[in-house]
Amino acid sequence: MGLKTAEQYVASLRDGRVTYWDGERIDDITTHPRFRVPIAVASRDYAYDDPKAAELRSFTTEDGGRAHRIYQIPRSEADLAQRVELMYHTSIVGLVSGVYMALMSVKDAVAKVNPQYAANIEAMYRHARDNDLRAAEVITDAKGDRKRKAHEQDDPDLYLRIVKRTDEGIVVRGAKLHITAASLCHELVVMPTKGMRQDETDYAVSFSIPVNTKGVKIINRSFAPAELNEFDYPASAHHSIPEGFVVFDDVFVPWNRVFLAGEVQLASIFAQSLGLWERTGGLVEAVRMAEIFVGLAQLVTEQQGKDRDPIAQNSVAELISYAEMLRMSLDYACRHCERTPSGMIHPNVLAVNVAKYYYAANYHQMMRYVHDLGGGLVITLPLEADFRNEESGQYLRKYLRSVPGVEAETRMRVYNLIRDLTADAYGGWQFVVALQAGGGLNAQRIMMHRTYNMAAAKAKALAAAGA
Amino acid sequence: MGLKTAEQYVASLRDGRVTYWDGERIDDITTHPRFRVPIAVASRDYAYDDPKAAELRSFTTEDGGRAHRIYQIPRSEADLAQRVELMYHTSIVGLVSGVYMALMSVKDAVAKVNPQYAANIEAMYRHARDNDLRAAEVITDAKGDRKRKAHEQDDPDLYLRIVKRTDEGIVVRGAKLHITAASLCHELVVMPTKGMRQDETDYAVSFSIPVNTKGVKIINRSFAPAELNEFDYPASAHHSIPEGFVVFDDVFVPWNRVFLAGEVQLASIFAQSLGLWERTGGLVEAVRMAEIFVGLAQLVTEQQGKDRDPIAQNSVAELISYAEMLRMSLDYACRHCERTPSGMIHPNVLAVNVAKYYYAANYHQMMRYVHDLGGGLVITLPLEADFRNEESGQYLRKYLRSVPGVEAETRMRVYNLIRDLTADAYGGWQFVVALQAGGGLNAQRIMMHRTYNMAAAKAKALAAAGA
Amino acid sequence: MGLKTAEQYVASLRDGRVTYWDGERIDDITTHPRFRVPIAVASRDYAYDDPKAAELRSFTTEDGGRAHRIYQIPRSEADLAQRVELMYHTSIVGLVSGVYMALMSVKDAVAKVNPQYAANIEAMYRHARDNDLRAAEVITDAKGDRKRKAHEQDDPDLYLRIVKRTDEGIVVRGAKLHITAASLCHELVVMPTKGMRQDETDYAVSFSIPVNTKGVKIINRSFAPAELNEFDYPASAHHSIPEGFVVFDDVFVPWNRVFLAGEVQLASIFAQSLGLWERTGGLVEAVRMAEIFVGLAQLVTEQQGKDRDPIAQNSVAELISYAEMLRMSLDYACRHCERTPSGMIHPNVLAVNVAKYYYAANYHQMMRYVHDLGGGLVITLPLEADFRNEESGQYLRKYLRSVPGVEAETRMRVYNLIRDLTADAYGGWQFVVALQAGGGLNAQRIMMHRTYNMAAAKAKALAAAGA
Amino acid sequence: MGLKTAEQYVASLRDGRVTYWDGERIDDITTHPRFRVPIAVASRDYAYDDPKAAELRSFTTEDGGRAHRIYQIPRSEADLAQRVELMYHTSIVGLVSGVYMALMSVKDAVAKVNPQYAANIEAMYRHARDNDLRAAEVITDAKGDRKRKAHEQDDPDLYLRIVKRTDEGIVVRGAKLHITAASLCHELVVMPTKGMRQDETDYAVSFSIPVNTKGVKIINRSFAPAELNEFDYPASAHHSIPEGFVVFDDVFVPWNRVFLAGEVQLASIFAQSLGLWERTGGLVEAVRMAEIFVGLAQLVTEQQGKDRDPIAQNSVAELISYAEMLRMSLDYACRHCERTPSGMIHPNVLAVNVAKYYYAANYHQMMRYVHDLGGGLVITLPLEADFRNEESGQYLRKYLRSVPGVEAETRMRVYNLIRDLTADAYGGWQFVVALQAGGGLNAQRIMMHRTYNMAAAKAKALAAAGA
Repeated sequence: MGLKTAEQYVASLRDGRVTYWDGERIDDITTHPRFRVPIAVASRDYAYDDPKAAELRSFTTEDGGRAHRIYQIPRSEADLAQRVELMYHTSIVGLVSGVYMALMSVKDAVAKVNPQYAANIEAMYRHARDNDLRAAEVITDAKGDRKRKAHEQDDPDLYLRIVKRTDEGIVVRGAKLHITAASLCHELVVMPTKGMRQDETDYAVSFSIPVNTKGVKIINRSFAPAELNEFDYPASAHHSIPEGFVVFDDVFVPWNRVFLAGEVQLASIFAQSLGLWERTGGLVEAVRMAEIFVGLAQLVTEQQGKDRDPIAQNSVAELISYAEMLRMSLDYACRHCERTPSGMIHPNVLAVNVAKYYYAANYHQMMRYVHDLGGGLVITLPLEADFRNEESGQYLRKYLRSVPGVEAETRMRVYNLIRDLTADAYGGWQFVVALQAGGGLNAQRIMMHRTYNMAAAKAKALAAAGA
Repeated sequence: MGLKTAEQYVASLRDGRVTYWDGERIDDITTHPRFRVPIAVASRDYAYDDPKAAELRSFTTEDGGRAHRIYQIPRSEADLAQRVELMYHTSIVGLVSGVYMALMSVKDAVAKVNPQYAANIEAMYRHARDNDLRAAEVITDAKGDRKRKAHEQDDPDLYLRIVKRTDEGIVVRGAKLHITAASLCHELVVMPTKGMRQDETDYAVSFSIPVNTKGVKIINRSFAPAELNEFDYPASAHHSIPEGFVVFDDVFVPWNRVFLAGEVQLASIFAQSLGLWERTGGLVEAVRMAEIFVGLAQLVTEQQGKDRDPIAQNSVAELISYAEMLRMSLDYACRHCERTPSGMIHPNVLAVNVAKYYYAANYHQMMRYVHDLGGGLVITLPLEADFRNEESGQYLRKYLRSVPGVEAETRMRVYNLIRDLTADAYGGWQFVVALQAGGGLNAQRIMMHRTYNMAAAKAKALAAAGA
Repeated sequence: MGLKTAEQYVASLRDGRVTYWDGERIDDITTHPRFRVPIAVASRDYAYDDPKAAELRSFTTEDGGRAHRIYQIPRSEADLAQRVELMYHTSIVGLVSGVYMALMSVKDAVAKVNPQYAANIEAMYRHARDNDLRAAEVITDAKGDRKRKAHEQDDPDLYLRIVKRTDEGIVVRGAKLHITAASLCHELVVMPTKGMRQDETDYAVSFSIPVNTKGVKIINRSFAPAELNEFDYPASAHHSIPEGFVVFDDVFVPWNRVFLAGEVQLASIFAQSLGLWERTGGLVEAVRMAEIFVGLAQLVTEQQGKDRDPIAQNSVAELISYAEMLRMSLDYACRHCERTPSGMIHPNVLAVNVAKYYYAANYHQMMRYVHDLGGGLVITLPLEADFRNEESGQYLRKYLRSVPGVEAETRMRVYNLIRDLTADAYGGWQFVVALQAGGGLNAQRIMMHRTYNMAAAKAKALAAAGA
Repeated sequence: MGLKTAEQYVASLRDGRVTYWDGERIDDITTHPRFRVPIAVASRDYAYDDPKAAELRSFTTEDGGRAHRIYQIPRSEADLAQRVELMYHTSIVGLVSGVYMALMSVKDAVAKVNPQYAANIEAMYRHARDNDLRAAEVITDAKGDRKRKAHEQDDPDLYLRIVKRTDEGIVVRGAKLHITAASLCHELVVMPTKGMRQDETDYAVSFSIPVNTKGVKIINRSFAPAELNEFDYPASAHHSIPEGFVVFDDVFVPWNRVFLAGEVQLASIFAQSLGLWERTGGLVEAVRMAEIFVGLAQLVTEQQGKDRDPIAQNSVAELISYAEMLRMSLDYACRHCERTPSGMIHPNVLAVNVAKYYYAANYHQMMRYVHDLGGGLVITLPLEADFRNEESGQYLRKYLRSVPGVEAETRMRVYNLIRDLTADAYGGWQFVVALQAGGGLNAQRIMMHRTYNMAAAKAKALAAAGA
């Protein structure tokens, strides 16, 4: 119990979990090349040794133990600021494990309906926290035909559902899609994908089970082949995490791990508890990336000697504007944080949704500015190996020279990062992630309508209209 | 000395100023119908009687007197917040008078070059403050051919310049354009329109003179005819302020009113001292208007019974997003305020420029959403008189009925405000104001490049690129 | 019978029609100042004397008479080209009178249901054609609550309906909105606003009646006051046409003027017969205006000496692109025209809808480019009277000088046209017209879905997907 | 001599050319796995056997021989239409070989300066045509610091230049970038990258040499690893063509292959002769792809049961609008084709530039619509191998079920094509290709300014302004 080392984390993944990738059933992911980078990424969050990292990454629980700070429930604006700072330095595997912290925010509401469920949430939160576990957010159902409700589908399993209830627990069947890092976690925290109606009782279900539970199967997918060279792929050589298509083939869940089993009135608060934190995570990443895009845009412009070109300056200014609007809105969301009845602090809901929407809605256009600045070399630049090859490399060194003080190698690195982030497998994947992670544009529009103070706006408009 | 009443303000405008409008030389603007609304607007800032208004609008100077708060030099974040609150309740005539407060921010820099100029700034600031004067920001030159510098123009007067220097003062000649409220102020505060080069000595000039100084002539223009009905024109019936084309026909300025006369190295800091506050004012107005646009969009949608229409909801959400991004960035600009060497507090320069840019660059598109929601009635709705006429009015009452609880009159008022703000003379004028007031898009892009921490962005990009 | 002179047209408007404007019931519109410009506009279409105009504007009917070409039913691509050329030179009053020509396109379909209706259409077409009448397109109902169908409204009259049927004819009640030029026409051609369901029988009604029919009342509205100076308002001084809010207060329509009275299955083809031609008219106007916007943008740029400024060139290029995409798509729509079963030729439906959509969806953004180029003088330029006034005029002549060869007066005219078209009452009105005339964005999207060859696109996509 | 077979083409590539890829010097590209797909793509253009293909792909020369139609010089609108049809069915290797045909359009202008150059062009055209060769367009220089001209660079070789002139020919040195298909062609046709000034004599050079000429070295790059599975990569498994970084290390060119050697006044007409055809090719591809995007958007929407969702319909309509605007403008460009003095027909220059600009400027935004419709499965869908694996495949078949009649496999294929085209290595590459191929946005803006009839637009604007 307590904080794990990276080695302990890796060892803990050898637990018989059923994982597929590219048609292969992988028995031990810790030795499989496809999982080398993902496990390295996840392991970095277990680096507590350095005092500064320890301060950033861990906190003292109310029991006096040390736990990963992702499990800390923010109770003040300062806590929230610290959490945001943590997010900048935490992998997506760590971030999604905040799911238990989010669940704690609905505990009081759950307790009113069924105190046992609330107790289960609390117990699981402590179990995961105190064992330094990682947990995946398991939400999106297969959904089938969107025009029809869960129980109206041709196959009733197209939304994950309870197929059996016993004295010991429930048996569930279904599949959950886009489950980030499912294969790299210890627990799967399952939630309903949306609010449920009266007649969708079997679909209002939430629980947490170990990844190696019998009947759980994960089919993985990522943008990346196993190994990428870090010169040519400066970002994606380090950042790949697989998404899981997670199947529950009649999986048994004991009652003490169940958080919801039929109480449809609670389904939507479960579904929403995570969205805010997912989008906050997305926004933190957006702020981080947008600044890098500004830097890349300026570098590639300067390196071509075009930094006095008004059209180039215009494009860079658009990127600055994007980066700063994002940074300001994240700052606002944290300073204007909100408090739940039980005293948990979270970022301003409207602010996060508006900012995430702004990020997603404008991402493609911003990449157009980057691509306009970068020019054709973004995609036609030769590979590192050609640069290292003496015969061909001499030409690259000679002909990639531009303004004084800039090495051919530096230019190549800048071009490679632009390509990797915006115009290659990882970059292509990022377009969709920017738009869809944490819910697509429509999900944010719905939240804007729900949280905006429309009564005030209408009153001001009517007053201005003289009505 | 001290605060003026509205009546005293009006009386003070009868001072022999030379003002033209629509071909007429107007000897007394206080009795001319074209100036009725503008003077009423300006007079509202002199309403100090109500204690709440007094608190909002006035402050105690270091001499113990009371003065309009627009003259208060912010020395803390709280001062700045109070100033922003004031801006929401102050006319543009009051706002531009902040020019002396802005000048105080450059006083120290000026003192290093010429202490007398600095003393003049301080004296004029106190004079204006202690007499509750209004002062116009007089900046933009005629400019002639933009490819050529000031002294290269066919006519050397196309930028305002010093034509003579005497022991008593200087004589200036030229014209200044887009001078908001020139005819409604007591003082004209003249600044260089831009930085000046070595050979543009005569053009580096700044001073303050009374509006009725010999040789000053103002040609007025506004979007509005004299009188507008407030039912049909709910906004513009109350809000018109003329812009002045201000001519300096060999105007003498005594040395004690001169702030700059040839020291080219100071020209650009004068020119920039105002831009920030102009844009802050624009941003405050943007926040106020954007919320009203959301309210109007929602009202017109509900009143058509279309509030469940996804396309309509989408358009409203876009407007919410716009309004909130603006509100968040203004909040950020104030919380992350900056301090000059002499201890004056001002909004964050980068934040204000980015936010103003966002406002201006997206304004037209946002109006497209409003127009899409409003439909044809925005422009085809009959006038109030038709509504009041018994014969025709009965039909309007009958046929403008839509959802329960909404009166035809309310619908008309909502449509009228939409049209007035976005699709009529005032609305048309607003498109240009949104884009050009406080400097066009390019002016903000330049400031973004100047103030963004590009070194940090490049460093992060290079680190990410492995370079 | 035969072509009318302009004088005969004007005289024919003195027929007792009931018209209101600004609260006044106007007994003779031909002598009322508000109608001076509108009647002048409409009269221009009656100028047949000049041989070239006669050739453009009139054609020989199958009976050997001469009629306005707006009544000519296109039977070949050449006819269509001639009609488009005519549209460039015809007022909106003439254009809407094409309604009978459009009705002729549905005559065959109507005949299958009720041959008498078809005969009535043909007779009315000949009557209007042979008497050189003008007819308004009377379509949009008041609509009330959009969530409810016609017969579900609180007031059943919110969609125009048949309230009584007799042996002699029908009696109708309701109001029609946005009826362009209603007061300037001879006939009102009423159509259902949309397709009607089984239970909306009373609302499936179409007919034509004289404007002066008992019970018809028109409440007018335009963007413009009565008189505008043509220097300051170069466009709107000449172009105003009022929109009518047209009330049918138990109006009797004899059977021989009825085209539809309860046959719900025909309602939508009536409603659609006009949309195509309205949008074609809108597209012709779009092509005409877009070229003028390019010209204005370039002129205002050159006149500031900014024609070598890359940002300005970029904005002008965007406007060129807009103008040319519109011109090319109109050309395409005519060359790829379509033929009805009865041999009538009309522009390509998909092309017209796509092009109108492109026009409308991008109009606001294009005006942003114009406003960015124009700068503040677009709205702050003094008026003509100030220019003509000797005292103030001398300064305008002096200070509006810019590049060699450009007169101050020319600059003023260019600024005035920009303002008038984009940033004043007429310009504001144009934003809404661009978006809403001929149906808003959604109306065009619906038509795109209906007419696009989706089967082919899906087949190609599936083939490319290997499915 | 005459048409080659695919086998002859492949054999002809074994000629000692010096080619690098990923650090490896490849001696025989015809047996190297990286070249398998590219050579297969290029070989398809040599399929003349089928009579329909023969008709499409070949024509009878004036000498009575058969040649690939890419060499046919269009002399009528019908020829041009046939050429466009050919472009839809020709690989990029074939398309770029149109370079000689384009050169023929400048022959007359060249002849006026130096008849021998013109004769060389003609001879090379016939040589390539009559031997069914493929030729790369070798234009873009390394360029170094864009602020400086060719001869001002730190290294004079940053633009390709003549380093020596002898009686036998010239010796050139430099590098050319983004040379599509360089390794797959027989000839390299070198052109100046831009117009040249008086003092850039050595840089005004054009010639054609075999790829295996001594001193020529090609470093290849493509988006793709060697082999891609065609289920997971339905587009890119078939379409990869490498771009070449082509080095000229003191390459000797005999005089009979030189088209330009110092006559700076001709440089820009060489540079421009190709741009039009490159952009036409880009536009043809744009039309083809845009239709597929519409199909994919509609398929993915229907397969989720969301085809009645207004937001989805809106996104599809935007894609329809994009596809049709492109199709209409390509049609226009061909119908309004232009004739050179020597009688060669080419597409309308303004139309092609405007349409290519519209394509490129809106491509990113259109992909946003596709990504919004596709949702997360675009990137998280498991691979084919997981689908074929019995254990994991059963779950994919079960849980990817949605609306009746759609197989899981079909859904996977549709998602895979969307991902491959828009959100993976090939898709990322396509973003840059859309923007940069044939010259970036600015290149098209320049051509718009050059070819738009600005005088007419200004005259109309002035007339409308009353000036």
